Amino acid sequence: MIPIKDENNQKEKVALIGCGLIGQSWAISFLRVGYDVSLFDPVEGVTVQAKENIKAKLSDLQNHGLLENKNISDYLDKIHLARDISQAVGGSIYIQESGPEDLDIKKELTKNIDAATPDDIPIASSTSGIPTSLYASDVQGKYRCLVAHPINPPHLIPAVEIVPAPFTSEAITQNVKEIIISIDKEPLELKKEIPGFVVNRLQGALLSEAFNLVKDGISTAEDIDKAISQGLGLRWSFMGPFQTIHLNAPEGIAGYVERYEKMYREMFNKPDIDWSSVVKLGLEEELLNLYQLSDREKHEKERDDKLTKLFLHKIQP
Amino acid sequence: MIPIKDENNQKEKVALIGCGLIGQSWAISFLRVGYDVSLFDPVEGVTVQAKENIKAKLSDLQNHGLLENKNISDYLDKIHLARDISQAVGGSIYIQESGPEDLDIKKELTKNIDAATPDDIPIASSTSGIPTSLYASDVQGKYRCLVAHPINPPHLIPAVEIVPAPFTSEAITQNVKEIIISIDKEPLELKKEIPGFVVNRLQGALLSEAFNLVKDGISTAEDIDKAISQGLGLRWSFMGPFQTIHLNAPEGIAGYVERYEKMYREMFNKPDIDWSSVVKLGLEEELLNLYQLSDREKHEKERDDKLTKLFLHKIQP
Repeated sequence: MIPIKDENNQKEKVALIGCGLIGQSWAISFLRVGYDVSLFDPVEGVTVQAKENIKAKLSDLQNHGLLENKNISDYLDKIHLARDISQAVGGSIYIQESGPEDLDIKKELTKNIDAATPDDIPIASSTSGIPTSLYASDVQGKYRCLVAHPINPPHLIPAVEIVPAPFTSEAITQNVKEIIISIDKEPLELKKEIPGFVVNRLQGALLSEAFNLVKDGISTAEDIDKAISQGLGLRWSFMGPFQTIHLNAPEGIAGYVERYEKMYREMFNKPDIDWSSVVKLGLEEELLNLYQLSDREKHEKERDDKLTKLFLHKIQP
Repeated sequence: MIPIKDENNQKEKVALIGCGLIGQSWAISFLRVGYDVSLFDPVEGVTVQAKENIKAKLSDLQNHGLLENKNISDYLDKIHLARDISQAVGGSIYIQESGPEDLDIKKELTKNIDAATPDDIPIASSTSGIPTSLYASDVQGKYRCLVAHPINPPHLIPAVEIVPAPFTSEAITQNVKEIIISIDKEPLELKKEIPGFVVNRLQGALLSEAFNLVKDGISTAEDIDKAISQGLGLRWSFMGPFQTIHLNAPEGIAGYVERYEKMYREMFNKPDIDWSSVVKLGLEEELLNLYQLSDREKHEKERDDKLTKLFLHKIQP
C-alpha cells in the first residue's frame, strides 16, 4: 500500500482531474488536512478559476472556525496547477477524477489517466452512478480503478461511497478507504456494483414518490419539501432509516415490520413488498447487534436530546 | 370558527383521547404554549402514568432552555385527567384522538367522541395512514372529522399533516390549521386523501429501496443508515428534496430532470418514470416561484452555511 505521508511525515500529493464544483470540493477536503493537490482540467482557464473558488471557500471555513488558524496562503501554496494529466499525476499517491457524467468521456479519460499514472496508484472516479465495470473494463490498469462518490457539497458532507468493480484489487480498495478516512470522511463500501449505488438509489426512490404525489395532485412541492425539512429530515440528519424504525417498536425491526408491512403494502399497492423475509435473512440480527433493544429507552432519550439540540441549532440566526 | 383564547385572552382547553407516547407528546406541545389539556385513555392508569412522563419531558425541555422559566408545576396544573370521553371533551375547543392504528377501533372511537362533543369542535386523528373517509364516513358529525398526523416525537418535530376528507368542512380544516400553528407547528395540508399520506409514503418509498439493497447484498443496514445520517439527511434537515435538485442545476429542476431522468430510469429499470411531464405540468413553475434561479448562488451559499453550522452542531458534545 502507498503510504499517505512522506519520509518527513508530511502528507503526500493527490491529483484532481476535472475541476468543476466537485473537483474544487475535493481539493478543499484534501488541503484542509495537509495534502498537496495537483489540479488539471482539459478546459483552458478552469484550474485558475478553481483556485479562486477554493480560496473563497477556504475563507468561509476559516470564518466558521473549521480551519486551523493559519494563513489561507499556506493552503493555496499547496495547490499546483498542472498543464496536462501527466504533470498532475506525477508524484501523486491518489488520483480523483471528477469529469462529466458521460460514459464515453469517462472511458477515454480513465484510459488516459491510467496510461500516465505509475502502478498501484488508485484511480477513483466521482461518478454519481456509473459503475467502474462499465467505464474501465478495457483499461489496462483496471485493477486500481474504482468509484469514490462524494455527496454535494463534498467538503461539507462526510459520506463517500466506495464502489469497487469485481476486477478492482482488494488492496486498492483498502488504500482508498484509508485515504478517505484521512480526510475525515466516512467511506461506505458497497459489496456489489449497482447503477446509482446506494445514495442515489435512496434519493431516487424518494424523488420518484415525490414526483408521483405532485402528479396526482396530493400536495404541493413546497409542502413535500417541508414534510422532509420540517419532518423526516430532522431525524435523518443523525439517524438512518433502519435505526429509526428499529427503535420505533419495542420489539425492534421485526416488530415494526410485523406492525406496518401491511400498511406500506396497501399504500404502494404491491401484493408483496418483501420486508419480513429480508428481516429474517439477517437484517434483524445486524440491527440487534448495532442497537440493543435493552438500550431502547437510552437510545430514545439520545434521539430526543439530539433533536432538541438540532431544534435549538436551527432557530439560531 | 371557535376562538383559541377565552375572554381573558387565556388559551382554551383541548382534549387528548389516547395517552400513549403520541398523546403525551401532543400534551407537551399544547401545554408549552399555555393551553389546558384534558387527558383520557380507556385503559385504567394510563393517564396517571402519562402525566408522570409529561412531567419528565417538560423538565428535559426546560433544561435545554425550551420552556419559559417557570415552575413545571404551573404546566402540570393545566393537565386534567378525565374519567371518560364526555368529561374530556366538555369545554374543549379541539379534540385530538391518538388511539391504536386499527380501522374498527378508530371507527368506534370516533363515533363515541362525536356523540359526546358539542357541534363545530374539530375532531382530529393522529393516525399515520388511515384516511378519514375510511373511519368517519358513518359518523354523524363527520364534517368536523379529519387527520392531524404528527411525526414521532411530535413535541420535537414541527411538521403535522392535515388531511381533510371530501366531507370535512373547509371551516373546520382552517380552524385546525390555526390551532396547529398556535402550538408552533407547521401544518401541511394535503389536497386529496391518499393512504399513508405524504410523510409515510416518502418514508415508505425510501425504506422499500433500503430493504431491496439489503436483500440484494449491495450494502449493510449500517452503511445504508450512514448514507442518510452522514449524507443525504444532512441536507434534508433544512432543505427538501425538490429544493435540493432545483438548486443543483443551473437551469433549475427542468435542467436536473433533463440531465438525470435517464439515469434514474435505468437505475430502477422503468421505461418511463414520468418526471419530465410532471415538471411541465406546473412543478417547474412552482419551484421557480419559490426559489428564483437568479438567486442560485445566494441559495448555495446559504446551504453551505447551514451545513457548516450543522457540522459544528453535530460535533458538539
